[in-house]
Amino acid sequence: MKKHNFNAGPSILPREVIEKTAQAVLDFNGSGLSVLEISHRSKDFEVVMNETVALFKELLNIPEGYSVLFLGGGASMQFCMIPFNLFEKKAAFLNTGVWANKAMKEAKGFGEVVEVASSKDANYTFIPKDYVIPTDADYFHITTNNTIYGTEILTDIDSPVPLIADMSSDIFSRPMDVSKYGLIYGGAQKNLAPAGLTFVIVKDELLGKVSRYIPTMLNYKTHIADGSMFNTPPVLPIYSALETLRLLKANGGLAEMEKRNIAKAELLYNAIDNSKIFVGTAAKEDRSRMNICFVMKPEYKELEADFQKFASERGMVGIKGHRSVGGFRASTYNALPIESVQALVDCMQEFEKLKA
Amino acid sequence: MKKHNFNAGPSILPREVIEKTAQAVLDFNGSGLSVLEISHRSKDFEVVMNETVALFKELLNIPEGYSVLFLGGGASMQFCMIPFNLFEKKAAFLNTGVWANKAMKEAKGFGEVVEVASSKDANYTFIPKDYVIPTDADYFHITTNNTIYGTEILTDIDSPVPLIADMSSDIFSRPMDVSKYGLIYGGAQKNLAPAGLTFVIVKDELLGKVSRYIPTMLNYKTHIADGSMFNTPPVLPIYSALETLRLLKANGGLAEMEKRNIAKAELLYNAIDNSKIFVGTAAKEDRSRMNICFVMKPEYKELEADFQKFASERGMVGIKGHRSVGGFRASTYNALPIESVQALVDCMQEFEKLKA
Ligand SMILES: Cc1ncc(COP(=O)(O)O)c(C=O)c1O
Ligand SMILES: Cc1ncc(COP(=O)(O)O)c(C=O)c1O
Ligand SMILES: [Mg+2]
Ligand SMILES: [Mg+2]
Ligand SMILES: [Mg+2]
Ligand SMILES: [Mg+2]
Repeated sequence: MKKHNFNAGPSILPREVIEKTAQAVLDFNGSGLSVLEISHRSKDFEVVMNETVALFKELLNIPEGYSVLFLGGGASMQFCMIPFNLFEKKAAFLNTGVWANKAMKEAKGFGEVVEVASSKDANYTFIPKDYVIPTDADYFHITTNNTIYGTEILTDIDSPVPLIADMSSDIFSRPMDVSKYGLIYGGAQKNLAPAGLTFVIVKDELLGKVSRYIPTMLNYKTHIADGSMFNTPPVLPIYSALETLRLLKANGGLAEMEKRNIAKAELLYNAIDNSKIFVGTAAKEDRSRMNICFVMKPEYKELEADFQKFASERGMVGIKGHRSVGGFRASTYNALPIESVQALVDCMQEFEKLKA
Repeated sequence: MKKHNFNAGPSILPREVIEKTAQAVLDFNGSGLSVLEISHRSKDFEVVMNETVALFKELLNIPEGYSVLFLGGGASMQFCMIPFNLFEKKAAFLNTGVWANKAMKEAKGFGEVVEVASSKDANYTFIPKDYVIPTDADYFHITTNNTIYGTEILTDIDSPVPLIADMSSDIFSRPMDVSKYGLIYGGAQKNLAPAGLTFVIVKDELLGKVSRYIPTMLNYKTHIADGSMFNTPPVLPIYSALETLRLLKANGGLAEMEKRNIAKAELLYNAIDNSKIFVGTAAKEDRSRMNICFVMKPEYKELEADFQKFASERGMVGIKGHRSVGGFRASTYNALPIESVQALVDCMQEFEKLKA
């Protein structure tokens, strides 16, 4: 049976990327060696690293004065690495969910944290819009896509202080204006690569200003100076990322990706909005294009387990909602074809016909 | 042409592991999904994680009271993570090379560092043996195998304070007594898995005793509490590690591995000792079984580039010595077959016949 992979992360990658990665595991570039056993200091890998950085810059249209880093440890490590490098006295946060909270929690170990606004009381079903960013903060931190709640900030906001964005689950999903940000980071395991790789895009001039001692590996300057090769980088995920980026470019870049993501999201949100039994959880104006969350209407609540089973039997993978929201979550990342969304919609409609 | 992979790391992996990994990239366990796109929270991956931890404990004969962790960031991240968790007032170090120095440098950010002995003046060609470990140190740190210089500590030493060992390049190469150590760590990219995975074996009772604030991701307790799943772990390298460990067990475990490693090392060291033109760089009693370093004798010095070329043309990969030692380094990790060592020896002898 064909599987439709709606996993929230690690998540679906383009089949071409998977096949190229498998080929490189067997034999990298016809070298007679596996990509798993080449030196990261080899000429062959240097080429991979350089092209990956170059495509990152090209596809995201990153201006001069920014560095692109590939690190290990996950996006979660950035929750403390950012304050190590940028927090002097005060940092401001927009609280839009679990990940924003985790970032805030780590920052509190470094000084004063200001929560400018929160949608916690509404279980993070919307993005707060009326807030004031303190102009004396060292930075303002947002989570552009809230993977768990299915809300997304789709514009590049203006901030009077350096804007830091966790884009773990929506990087490369739309064209964006990097110049509005001081630092963008994320785990690569959604729109880019297999698990084990973290990307950081940082404006160089922000660094080197805090007074604390920064451990070498936690200092962005270390990794900038050595082109993400201060120590052994995650070689395979970087290779897979390169193949993803090559494909992105060949397929028309981020403008085309945005078009496809809008089409996929509309297809599923329309089905939800026209359903008698399903209902979306996020405020309409803040709906995410990457993670689409829905539940059964109260009068059909007891059908949730049934639908889960019904959908699984038809090849749907990973549609269970996060335990803090319940219901269902379909992650519709770049690599997910619209055919998979259609398959889910068919499944929902078939179920509705049977049960409602 | 058959390649003989003497890379220092990332380095050769068993062909079976490479083939199983490639297969899992295409289709994991017949699930219809790639191992690159499964959720780390899925039942299937939970099984992988549990078996990997269990085999780690079984093969290394790890006693009760120790945790095994799989993290990202590389061994280099441990250079600061260890002091974050264990450094209160003072730490002691045996200085046996570049990696020991890097570990010491990070510890200095936390308090008093005592270098109990150093072989720096001899370019780290031996392991110092006459030293006193201060009994008031929080821990004593050693690098059991010095990847760059080809020296190795082959016994599990006694220490009056918790013994911390960087075993990046010799873990799983011999049976050992884990109970003598407080913490063992390393990058997995030599004897275990592809790059992107760091292992930590830690005695639980040592944790939770320092007074400082430890960022969540840098706290071993975080990862112990969540079985290395606090955040997304490096899924693919963990899967490859599992396949390596399964093979290790099927092949007779660490006792058999040690026998093979001794045989390989003897073969190459004998060739070096019996050569007119090559000479080993490490003190004989401290010779590593994992990284075998040799140079041209002074009177043949100008032949080094010739031999490098000669060997490359015969399929030898990665035998260039680290720039701080020069000459040649053949890394003879677990996965390297003795046939590759024999091929290198043949190559050396053929070259010697032609040139000397
Ligand atoms: C928005 C966001 N931030 C951070 C994380 C944590 O990433 P990691 O598991 O790489 O630490 C996630 C993971 O799902 C996420 O969705
Ligand atoms: C003994 C030793 N320690 C530490 C390291 C650093 O490991 P990583 O690159 O994973 O940070 C190495 C790498 O070669 C090593 O050989
Ligand atoms: Mg969230
Ligand atoms: Mg290295
Ligand atoms: Mg060394
Ligand atoms: Mg996750």
